[in-house]
Amino acid sequence: MLVVPTPSDAAPDSGQDLRRAQILQAARLCFAEAGFHGASMHQICAAAKMSPGALYRYFPSKEAIIEAIAEEERAEAARVMVLFRQPGAIVDRIMAAALAYLRMMERPGSAPLMVEICAETSRNTAVGERFHGIELNVREELREGLEAAKAAGETAADLDVDLALKMLLAIGDGLALRMGLERDLTPEVIAPALRRAIVGVVHG
Amino acid sequence: MLVVPTPSDAAPDSGQDLRRAQILQAARLCFAEAGFHGASMHQICAAAKMSPGALYRYFPSKEAIIEAIAEEERAEAARVMVLFRQPGAIVDRIMAAALAYLRMMERPGSAPLMVEICAETSRNTAVGERFHGIELNVREELREGLEAAKAAGETAADLDVDLALKMLLAIGDGLALRMGLERDLTPEVIAPALRRAIVGVVHG
Repeated sequence: MLVVPTPSDAAPDSGQDLRRAQILQAARLCFAEAGFHGASMHQICAAAKMSPGALYRYFPSKEAIIEAIAEEERAEAARVMVLFRQPGAIVDRIMAAALAYLRMMERPGSAPLMVEICAETSRNTAVGERFHGIELNVREELREGLEAAKAAGETAADLDVDLALKMLLAIGDGLALRMGLERDLTPEVIAPALRRAIVGVVHG
Repeated sequence: MLVVPTPSDAAPDSGQDLRRAQILQAARLCFAEAGFHGASMHQICAAAKMSPGALYRYFPSKEAIIEAIAEEERAEAARVMVLFRQPGAIVDRIMAAALAYLRMMERPGSAPLMVEICAETSRNTAVGERFHGIELNVREELREGLEAAKAAGETAADLDVDLALKMLLAIGDGLALRMGLERDLTPEVIAPALRRAIVGVVHG
């Protein structure tokens, strides 16, 4: 499940944008802690250190905040997938995208929010469907990349692309979860073992 | 994070044991849904279809229920690790333990409960520490097995055992999480891709 915190390189270009980004980051932490359902606009206001009146000028509802976070996710996923589209060996391209994903997941609240989105998705809620749509796009692009690499003879000849894809996504989720658990587990530290796992899945 | 639902082969041998197992399974579902902190004894009674008076005869407190679940986890982890201790190639032994773990994670509520335990562990709560201790035992045994396999020349000569271990645990967690998300993803379905990933991590 691809999920990331505030955009990294897209620096807010005005005071208003900055305030908006602060609200969304506060909301992410609230949703990570209490869930989309559990977190209230009141809690989000407190976390963003804003009055309800001030916050409502940016977002009229919790749904609007969730939609804005989903839009951030979509944009982040697109940035990650740019790395996958670079020329090069399939393993290198998967590694580049995976490391970019894990770097985003290092930010506070990312792993719990990813898990919360997984829960929403498995319950088929509207929020779950919204985020799941983003993952489906990522998945489709990864699938096409793997299919092309297989057709070019770059993977194991008998590669089950669908299964390999699920395995790769599981590895990403599992690492994101464990990075939340073990603070010394960074993308850079895990990179060599991650590469071995990816090589195994793709070439094995 | 090793976590499993009710014991599989240890059939309750009396009406009392059966009732006790029912309470624990109901409590697991409540904790999976609302968290250890969020779920109340009232909710657990309702889920177990018992009056508080009847339930309190088995467990005097929520803490006692959590402790009983932790003890089930410890026993399940021990059963999984029996498979790892069998003779054979290191990859086969890891596969056997991983598949047994994933089969347990198929049961309702297992993946969310695993995630809840991860969250408790990362917050260093007493509950988190209790469950983390179980994982540390599993991890230590896996580490010894990997070290022995490396010494016997059965793995890549330069294997970073600690990193390989973290990667294997992440793969297990990630698959458990994804199995909760995609109902057609069973341990049997994912087995070939899982083996490739394990081979990559251990031999790559």
